[in-house]
Amino acid sequence: MSRLDSFIRRLEAQRACIDRAVALAAPLPGPVIEVGLGNGRTYDHLRDRARGREIFAFDRHVAAHPACVPDAAHLLLGDFRATLAQAASALGGKIAICHADIGSGDEAASQALGAEIAPLIDALMAPGGIIVGDQVMRAARWEELPLPPGIEPGRYFIRRVRA
Amino acid sequence: MSRLDSFIRRLEAQRACIDRAVALAAPLPGPVIEVGLGNGRTYDHLRDRARGREIFAFDRHVAAHPACVPDAAHLLLGDFRATLAQAASALGGKIAICHADIGSGDEAASQALGAEIAPLIDALMAPGGIIVGDQVMRAARWEELPLPPGIEPGRYFIRRVRA
Repeated sequence: MSRLDSFIRRLEAQRACIDRAVALAAPLPGPVIEVGLGNGRTYDHLRDRARGREIFAFDRHVAAHPACVPDAAHLLLGDFRATLAQAASALGGKIAICHADIGSGDEAASQALGAEIAPLIDALMAPGGIIVGDQVMRAARWEELPLPPGIEPGRYFIRRVRA
Repeated sequence: MSRLDSFIRRLEAQRACIDRAVALAAPLPGPVIEVGLGNGRTYDHLRDRARGREIFAFDRHVAAHPACVPDAAHLLLGDFRATLAQAASALGGKIAICHADIGSGDEAASQALGAEIAPLIDALMAPGGIIVGDQVMRAARWEELPLPPGIEPGRYFIRRVRA
C-alpha cells in the first residue's frame, strides 16, 4: 500500500467515524468541540454534518484555511491542557460531540497528550456524549464503540459517555 | 460538500488517474517524471504502481517525507522551467509517464505555470507517453483522454502523446 493509499484510507476512516459520531449523538442536545483545528477540514465537515450545533475549536495557533476559522467566541487558542481546563466553567458537562485529531509525527508525544487531555475532555462531556478521535483515550465513564464497517481497528476511535 | 469531502474526492481522483496512466503506458518502455515532489505521497504511489521504472522527481526544494525522497541522481531541484529544460539532453523523447501536480493556492499562477512548462514536458515525452496532472496543459501532439468513471471533468487530466 502506497502512502497515498494509506492517506486516503485514513481520511475515509476519519470521515466515516465523524459521521457515525454525529449520527449517534443525534438525540442529544449540546455543542461540539473540535480539539485540534489544524487546516480546518474536519471543522468544516462537522459544521456541515452537525448543522445547528455550536462548535468550539481548540488549537495552539490558527493554521486553518480562512473560510474555516471560527469567530473569536468559538476559538480557544493555547495549550490544550490549559484551554480545555478553562472551558470547564462554561461548557462542563454540556458537550454532545468531541472530535479530537491531535496526532503529530511524534507517536509517543501524541499518545502522552491523549492520555493527559482525556480527563479534561471527560469533564466537558454530557452523559451520552460521543468522543471520536485519532488517539487512544480512556476515562472511567467512557465505553468503546465499534467502528463503521471496513475500518481497521486502531485507525480511529469512537467512545460514548455512559449515561 | 465539506472541505473534507472535497479533499477526499480530489485524492481519489488523483489516485485513479495515476493508476489509469500507469495502465495506459504499460506497453511503453521508459522512465517516469514526477513534476512537483511535494510531500512525496504520489512519488511513493508511482514507485509502487509503476514498479521497475526509473522515476525522476522535480521540485523547487525537498519537503517530502524522508522515506519518499529519491536519490541525488533522480532528484532535480530548482525552478521547473530550468530543470525540465536541462533534463532534455538526458531524457528528451524518453519519458513514458509524466505526473505533474503543480497547483498552489494561487489558481492564476498555477495555470500560468502549467502553460509554461507544457512544452518543456512535451520535449521529454516519448511518442505514446501519458501525461497526467492537475492543470490544463496543451501541446500540439497531445490528445485528451477520458477520465476514469466517477471523476468530474476538470478535477484531473490525462493526455497521450500521439505516436
